[in-house]
Amino acid sequence: MVDPSSREPVVVTGGAGAIGSFLVRSLQASGAPVTVVDNLSSGRREFLEPLLSEGSVKLVVADVRVRERYESTLRGASALWHLAANPDIRLGTADPTIDLEQGTVATFHVLEAVRRADVPTVLFSSSSVVYGTPSVFPTPEEYGPLLPESLYGASKLAAEGLLSAYARLYGLRVYIFRFANIIGPIMTHGVLFDFFRKLKSDPTTLEVLGDGRQAKSYLRAEECVEAMRFVALHAKEPVNVYNLGTRDRLSVREIAEKVVAANGGRARIVYTGGPRGWAGDIPQQLLSIDKVESLGWHPRHTSAEAVDLCLREMTRGA
Amino acid sequence: MVDPSSREPVVVTGGAGAIGSFLVRSLQASGAPVTVVDNLSSGRREFLEPLLSEGSVKLVVADVRVRERYESTLRGASALWHLAANPDIRLGTADPTIDLEQGTVATFHVLEAVRRADVPTVLFSSSSVVYGTPSVFPTPEEYGPLLPESLYGASKLAAEGLLSAYARLYGLRVYIFRFANIIGPIMTHGVLFDFFRKLKSDPTTLEVLGDGRQAKSYLRAEECVEAMRFVALHAKEPVNVYNLGTRDRLSVREIAEKVVAANGGRARIVYTGGPRGWAGDIPQQLLSIDKVESLGWHPRHTSAEAVDLCLREMTRGA
Repeated sequence: MVDPSSREPVVVTGGAGAIGSFLVRSLQASGAPVTVVDNLSSGRREFLEPLLSEGSVKLVVADVRVRERYESTLRGASALWHLAANPDIRLGTADPTIDLEQGTVATFHVLEAVRRADVPTVLFSSSSVVYGTPSVFPTPEEYGPLLPESLYGASKLAAEGLLSAYARLYGLRVYIFRFANIIGPIMTHGVLFDFFRKLKSDPTTLEVLGDGRQAKSYLRAEECVEAMRFVALHAKEPVNVYNLGTRDRLSVREIAEKVVAANGGRARIVYTGGPRGWAGDIPQQLLSIDKVESLGWHPRHTSAEAVDLCLREMTRGA
Repeated sequence: MVDPSSREPVVVTGGAGAIGSFLVRSLQASGAPVTVVDNLSSGRREFLEPLLSEGSVKLVVADVRVRERYESTLRGASALWHLAANPDIRLGTADPTIDLEQGTVATFHVLEAVRRADVPTVLFSSSSVVYGTPSVFPTPEEYGPLLPESLYGASKLAAEGLLSAYARLYGLRVYIFRFANIIGPIMTHGVLFDFFRKLKSDPTTLEVLGDGRQAKSYLRAEECVEAMRFVALHAKEPVNVYNLGTRDRLSVREIAEKVVAANGGRARIVYTGGPRGWAGDIPQQLLSIDKVESLGWHPRHTSAEAVDLCLREMTRGA
């Protein structure tokens, strides 16, 4: 069990990333010695400042597939949070090896390191995309068959299977969190990041991929971290699968309009058309969060509020 | 679509194996030029005789991860049947890399070869073990979450995800067959194979792993091949998931008694105890076959009849 008040050492792969760095801050604030393993391919040192320069968090710059680089840091750890992965679904379609290597094979090596070092608990960031295009909304954890439509989704499903097998074979406790879209003041990809970048390069026009009707739910990184830590404290099956999201969703059209308004309201929005933003996109996503709400955790903001908050933070930072 | 009367070339990975060799015979008998890709790690040349020496089937001895060895044979093929895998669930617990490499990574390379050669259809031998220990019997294809308990099961789930993603991203049609236990006159592992081998080395005692109450369904390899070809002809979704099995199941105790009777009835049966035969074993398995029966295919034998038939073939062959 991972107790937020615990002071036992923990390891976070991908801890220098957009979500990982929030998790690291939260764990460190609870008094746990935190070691981050990150190859800094999309994570950044500055996301962990001032913790790194203060020496309150340790960073091992390593690819998680190279176990010997970090295996020794796992000895005595009470939990490993595995967040390292290719974060951008679209990259995987251009180069099919990316998600196999950085998702599936990477997770295998992390689990082997965990098994050898006798770490009792693994917590994993999976994704709503394991559901593919579901026929049930909101989609519950029991939904099947799981037919992902991207190589990223395939790698998340493969990792879930590995975690489940390791739990049963080697006595680990594992947590599988299926995320809605996670947003926050730090972002390295995703719709808000893309729209801001596009408006920066051309303030007159915002090109939107697809017809704008794609609709998904958005959860703040901060609340996502709270939810994971809450579940880790209260759910105690050998294998714990939880959707994390909000009860509402927002269309890409609504988001585009919000982004344009936050940037002065002058840009014209142009849609490329078609139901899907890009190959591998799941246009409609709404997770059932009944299971996590029954456990006692509730999102503090709706998707609409989360996007508004995020836009205020981004325009302030720009 | 794979038409049994089609004479278009097809490729079968694992085609020299216990199930693959039946499939190859069936395809060849329909007039299709068949190329087998098999590394002969558990498959055997003799399973394909006299087809090989007659020259009516071509064998490429290669590991499917080494694409350049067989990619050229895929050009012009109408379908690839992907059956190559580590066939023995227990091996994967001793060496966790086996199923990752021979299951997940191997499937990735097969799909890459298929994509490059523009083969329109892939048919894959998955397994009931993707369901883990389900809470619903008989277990339907829509059951979730999918929580495998062996690395073999994890690799089958990973492969299913890859097939689904390739179908959506690159326009393939894929078939995922979740097999019950498949038995037949040719076997390289499994409970009947094990029991016969044990009785050969000690005809006085048959040691049974577990308490004998594990109960599963058994389908003849011949009927499994018929079912796959039937589904391939009649199901036309981009991703087609079908359980293949029978409506009944047999306990390990019943099988042990049948094997002892078939071998003269003198051996004493000794149970090692416990609900599970071995780490990663799923003690209770009964698939719903409503979906394949609705399509129009029905098993010709029950599990009990399939085991009896198989025992007659094995004692005749001994």
